[in-house]
Amino acid sequence: MDSLDTYFQSIAKGCEPANLYDPINYILSQDGKRIRPRLVMLAAELFGVNPDEVKHVAAAFEMLHNFTLIHDDIMDEAPIRRGMPTVYRQWNSNIAILAGDALAIMALQELLKAPCDDATKIKISDLFARTSLEICEGQQYDLDFETMDHVSIDDYIKMIRLKTAVMLAGCLKSGAIFAQASEADQQAMYDYGIHIGIAFQLKDDILDLYSDTQVFGKMTGGDIKENKKTYLYLTALKDADAQQRQTLLHYFSSTDFDQEQKIQAVKDIYESLKVKEKTEQAINLYAAKALSSLQAVSVSEDRKNKLYELANTLVSRDK
Amino acid sequence: MDSLDTYFQSIAKGCEPANLYDPINYILSQDGKRIRPRLVMLAAELFGVNPDEVKHVAAAFEMLHNFTLIHDDIMDEAPIRRGMPTVYRQWNSNIAILAGDALAIMALQELLKAPCDDATKIKISDLFARTSLEICEGQQYDLDFETMDHVSIDDYIKMIRLKTAVMLAGCLKSGAIFAQASEADQQAMYDYGIHIGIAFQLKDDILDLYSDTQVFGKMTGGDIKENKKTYLYLTALKDADAQQRQTLLHYFSSTDFDQEQKIQAVKDIYESLKVKEKTEQAINLYAAKALSSLQAVSVSEDRKNKLYELANTLVSRDK
Repeated sequence: MDSLDTYFQSIAKGCEPANLYDPINYILSQDGKRIRPRLVMLAAELFGVNPDEVKHVAAAFEMLHNFTLIHDDIMDEAPIRRGMPTVYRQWNSNIAILAGDALAIMALQELLKAPCDDATKIKISDLFARTSLEICEGQQYDLDFETMDHVSIDDYIKMIRLKTAVMLAGCLKSGAIFAQASEADQQAMYDYGIHIGIAFQLKDDILDLYSDTQVFGKMTGGDIKENKKTYLYLTALKDADAQQRQTLLHYFSSTDFDQEQKIQAVKDIYESLKVKEKTEQAINLYAAKALSSLQAVSVSEDRKNKLYELANTLVSRDK
Repeated sequence: MDSLDTYFQSIAKGCEPANLYDPINYILSQDGKRIRPRLVMLAAELFGVNPDEVKHVAAAFEMLHNFTLIHDDIMDEAPIRRGMPTVYRQWNSNIAILAGDALAIMALQELLKAPCDDATKIKISDLFARTSLEICEGQQYDLDFETMDHVSIDDYIKMIRLKTAVMLAGCLKSGAIFAQASEADQQAMYDYGIHIGIAFQLKDDILDLYSDTQVFGKMTGGDIKENKKTYLYLTALKDADAQQRQTLLHYFSSTDFDQEQKIQAVKDIYESLKVKEKTEQAINLYAAKALSSLQAVSVSEDRKNKLYELANTLVSRDK
């Protein structure tokens, strides 16, 4: 990803107006995980294409991802991202809205630079647009859930599929489309992406509460503080006895509680209900589904090592 | 435009989540001027293409325009648009950010539906992306100007070229590209669009102050209230004597003045400096440039009647 990092450091540098392009330069220069471009490249490589050839598509998805972060951080009032102030905190909301808009458009421009035939480019653009729209749907469901009394675990999985998983799936399928893989293989790559995407988000739910702030790059317990209905919370609510349920609903009814006390009280209930373990079981289930989708891809198993490894890395990561 | 209105009324109807698609349905169903799709269709028709064939491209630009309105209204804190509450006022800022994002993506999807060969589709998509990015640049300059001490009239024209004119130019050139017009004709159509676009925005500056609120659909004097550095204000500042200059700078230093008194005081200075007449002269100059660009298009003059008429309509409109 080094060449991509170098590319991102130059892409918006010195462009005018500075208040539009500096925030873009700021977020693209951050030390991100670069999972999405890696998926595009791994998928292309799996079907015999030099990963460097697909770098514009890879860059486009990373830019799309960063656009969603800029806007989501405004909506979620998130102060810190990757250990740095979020764009809207570093500048202001108006600048963050507009920088996000511009970055989404630059992502499309990046995609249109891909060195492939026009039909392939349009296929990838179609997928890119559908993916982007589904991410908006996922974010809106996420916002809706904040004020809904009843959210089922199925609703939650649907939301994170849209908000997180379709992007990873879109990356993998785009790499496959670029490499002219068969439709069946494109679909298997997409399904692999959906399953690791869901596992990835469930892992994120765990890391939000159970991780080292320094390593994770943001405060722990943020989801509890913000009354986010995560997999952890919904699992706890489903399995709680009457008193635990009352305590959970009480603490999730307001953000005015003493934060440390609230986080500890909720964490205690999670512990007694083994919520972390149950979430890890769900992660393992989705990881297994992902591996099964990957097995269905008609490429010899030894060429899939990096993708198997990546699935493991995402599940066992600590940030 | 009737068929487009009908199309827009159905495009997001009943889609889920409602909080994402209802605002899109709300803004697309409003009684807009539909200038942009009309330009796409007129351009295609000029080069012998049935306007109905280009309707997806036309719809895409209207959707792109409405995306910019949703986000701009958040940034400008505009309460009313087309006589109705703006999206962020009718719902809230978060919903407006996300609905705008989704609408921009739907615009791209609409564009990708255009019934033309892949190479043409990519050419139009390239132009669509560049245009969208320039609009963001224009909006950022506009925001920057709010806190800048010195803005020249040239700076202002550059800003409105980006914020308003490139979209009209993009519509006209897209229609020409779709119709396989020569590169020279594509460029002449683009130039025509830039010039009517600038004239259009200068007219908007006049209408903001000198129009019937009922007809215009928003409060008059909003630009003065918000200390917007419009063509009117910059012309006044340029031509003002020392005392008038001091009065203008005084009133434009804060939004805390009594609004009616402020608007009247500024309007009095504008009147004594003939600012409205000077702006009308500038409009006529850009309108003349537009007509000159249109003359350069290699199509017989009698087929250009609708475009000449449109230029006149935009310049003499009262809303």
